[in-house]
Amino acid sequence: MFKTKTYVQRREELKKKIKSGVILFLGNSEAPMNYAANTYHFRQDSTFLYYFGIDRPDLAAIIDLDENKEIIFGDDFTIDDIVWMGPQKSIKQEASSCGVKHTATFSDLEKFCEDAFKRGRRIHFVPQYRYDNILKIHKLLGIAPKHSNDYASTDLIKAIAEQRLVKSQEEINEIEKAIEIAYEMQTTAMRFAKAGMYEKDVMGFISGLAMSLGSGLSFPVIFSRRSEILHNHSYGNKLKNGDLVVNDSGAETTLHYASDITRTFPVSGKFTSMQKDIYEIVLITQLVAISEIKPNITYHSVHLKAAETITEGLKALGLIKGNTKDAVKAGAHALFFPHGLGHLLGLDVHDMENYGENNFGYDEKHKRSTQFGLKYLRYAKPLKENVVLTVEPGIYFIPALIEQWQKEKKHVDFINYEKVNEYKNFGGVRIEDDVVVTKNGARVLGKPIPKAVEDVEEIASDKI
Amino acid sequence: MFKTKTYVQRREELKKKIKSGVILFLGNSEAPMNYAANTYHFRQDSTFLYYFGIDRPDLAAIIDLDENKEIIFGDDFTIDDIVWMGPQKSIKQEASSCGVKHTATFSDLEKFCEDAFKRGRRIHFVPQYRYDNILKIHKLLGIAPKHSNDYASTDLIKAIAEQRLVKSQEEINEIEKAIEIAYEMQTTAMRFAKAGMYEKDVMGFISGLAMSLGSGLSFPVIFSRRSEILHNHSYGNKLKNGDLVVNDSGAETTLHYASDITRTFPVSGKFTSMQKDIYEIVLITQLVAISEIKPNITYHSVHLKAAETITEGLKALGLIKGNTKDAVKAGAHALFFPHGLGHLLGLDVHDMENYGENNFGYDEKHKRSTQFGLKYLRYAKPLKENVVLTVEPGIYFIPALIEQWQKEKKHVDFINYEKVNEYKNFGGVRIEDDVVVTKNGARVLGKPIPKAVEDVEEIASDKI
Ligand SMILES: [Mn+2]
Ligand SMILES: [Mn+2]
Repeated sequence: MFKTKTYVQRREELKKKIKSGVILFLGNSEAPMNYAANTYHFRQDSTFLYYFGIDRPDLAAIIDLDENKEIIFGDDFTIDDIVWMGPQKSIKQEASSCGVKHTATFSDLEKFCEDAFKRGRRIHFVPQYRYDNILKIHKLLGIAPKHSNDYASTDLIKAIAEQRLVKSQEEINEIEKAIEIAYEMQTTAMRFAKAGMYEKDVMGFISGLAMSLGSGLSFPVIFSRRSEILHNHSYGNKLKNGDLVVNDSGAETTLHYASDITRTFPVSGKFTSMQKDIYEIVLITQLVAISEIKPNITYHSVHLKAAETITEGLKALGLIKGNTKDAVKAGAHALFFPHGLGHLLGLDVHDMENYGENNFGYDEKHKRSTQFGLKYLRYAKPLKENVVLTVEPGIYFIPALIEQWQKEKKHVDFINYEKVNEYKNFGGVRIEDDVVVTKNGARVLGKPIPKAVEDVEEIASDKI
Repeated sequence: MFKTKTYVQRREELKKKIKSGVILFLGNSEAPMNYAANTYHFRQDSTFLYYFGIDRPDLAAIIDLDENKEIIFGDDFTIDDIVWMGPQKSIKQEASSCGVKHTATFSDLEKFCEDAFKRGRRIHFVPQYRYDNILKIHKLLGIAPKHSNDYASTDLIKAIAEQRLVKSQEEINEIEKAIEIAYEMQTTAMRFAKAGMYEKDVMGFISGLAMSLGSGLSFPVIFSRRSEILHNHSYGNKLKNGDLVVNDSGAETTLHYASDITRTFPVSGKFTSMQKDIYEIVLITQLVAISEIKPNITYHSVHLKAAETITEGLKALGLIKGNTKDAVKAGAHALFFPHGLGHLLGLDVHDMENYGENNFGYDEKHKRSTQFGLKYLRYAKPLKENVVLTVEPGIYFIPALIEQWQKEKKHVDFINYEKVNEYKNFGGVRIEDDVVVTKNGARVLGKPIPKAVEDVEEIASDKI
């Protein structure tokens, strides 16, 4: 946990934004894997972590704004629990570590909510993504499960999102710790991956590193020789020399701040010249995008700048033709770059995604595009100092998509399909770093992880 | 997957046991970690795997007994999905791999259930442990979430449990593959663990091995120098020479059969004589228990034999006094051995636990004890050929429990508390193997994992 005062201050700030009623926070419970008692590793809810920091299942909390009272609800362990799990802190001890004075049993929460309703008070809560918590909302507040999130408090979401958007120095330090772990994961993968191994061998090794060095993975590892598959979660392919593999992975620190880094490297340790061509377009695009970032610039415009840089590069190779701005406006580049440039990063790897991206990444002035590719951009609004986000352009040759577009004669004015088909088995390249917006620009966070062609080749040749 | 005919035969066998109505099988969906799209690794439901073998989220299936028809419900992927996830099999292809001819979209399932109700037919289902599936039961069958499992079909549970209890040769082979992975996890841990490391370093390494060599862990690793804590899932202690560490861990194969192995070893590579004394009692107990196992013997009686062997051993050390059988009958040994001797193993590490242990581990003739220790035995009934279970006796010195019993003067006729207190910082020892009941006895499954004192010392001294 951070120091007690961090949590006290965060709650004080929130109280200034939400004037009245009650804010209800549901912590997470253990998540059953194949039966109730065999659970996945425990992950506390990020909103709960942000305001209370207690990393333990089966808690809830309220901030009573009208009476300026905070209560943590939870049950102490029994002697039977202690036999099985060892000595545990009391709820009182847990609460005091985040500066909360009042505690009550979990079942008291039901009475509390009933009482609040009787007194005609509004109970604010954020959208829920765990089904057991959706059922708790049903039980406590009487909202049908399928409508749970329709009753989430937009005022609360916007207040919390505004607060969590800008990171404190201690949060940035935590994210840098998470990137230190990602550094180990990335460089180990480059050195460990060899022809004849399976993707799984490398995925397991680096997942283990994330568990040893932090709290485990911040999201399921993407490690694949089919580097054109954006979210590939199967690891059954055998690596060969000549393969380009993408490693998109990250870890959580013990406080659950995330990193998210992507590198693409040749299994053999040496890029082919065709691979180097595409790789360098992506790398230049990433550097250009980072150099564009500064306060007040929209991330939407940074995304478009990246799309233009990719388009310029692919024009030089003869894959795209015509006017760059027109091609990007039409969305032709999305055949190669079909996703957003990046996303917020913090306690969640896609920070605050459960609040609904349109609630914090877009607003009245910045509306979400419906265009293929651009519609996947997760944050479009102007940037601010101390916002942390990922910058992850990519170029992919996705056979199914190429076939579909070509059949539909899509963007034939901009795309040279004949040339594109020469790259059909290429795979893809993505390069991702985590950056913080500074006073006048941006800073790439953490210890630099090799990304220049010669640096990647050097590490990927130095096998362990 | 196994061959198509395996699944066809399993369903045919089930159909013989349940004569009429409809059997509804819900597959698992992705399980959200910290927001809806950031999920834990996918784990298919074991019942679904057993009868259909399809390892993919968001499926359901029915066996219509009255019309002898089987249907798999699920939705094909869109081009957008394929861009993100790569090429995927169609539902038709998936269904044919397990010999099911009919498929329908997931939303067709609702119509199917409505129609079945109109025709007055019974819909059988097993207890649910995932909250999203509890909500699906609510939506499909109109059962309030909190009563979902009250309406589970006892006939179906007993029929499936009877079928899954006895393993086929191909299932036993799979379990042996899972033990091969556990062999690597156990021997690697012994060789890797060194004074100065944290428990986490070893836990992460062996978890990574489980991911590389199989489908990951069959349950959260227990790896602790506080070896008296039965289910310790925190890994923050630093290892020291002189420590005894317990490593209770296992893996799933790609078909999701589990292993579950425990070894206790000295970090330094050398047991102290006090450690050796306790260790050898546990080892002898385990060997005695295994030698007791054969068809028609109850596992309850094997558990009691283990308890007696532990009691004899602790009597020789002066920790227990009085008549052995009386001490065990009174439950005095449970201060040191507070858990059951073992559990069924198969597609679940506690096989079929979600069906409710009392539905298959106990019956009218074999009722669950309420005595501390014995009440935790998960399977008590007579054994049969080709049943697979764990044998995992242990001796622990749990400070909180010792203090409580001594304060309450519990079993003072049998327990020499003065002597016990000399062991208060000892920790604990557990040794666990997975065995199959044979025609006349039992066989320890898999490649033998060192457990004799000298063999453990040899490996634990050979550091990597
Ligand atoms: Mn990312
Ligand atoms: Mn076990």
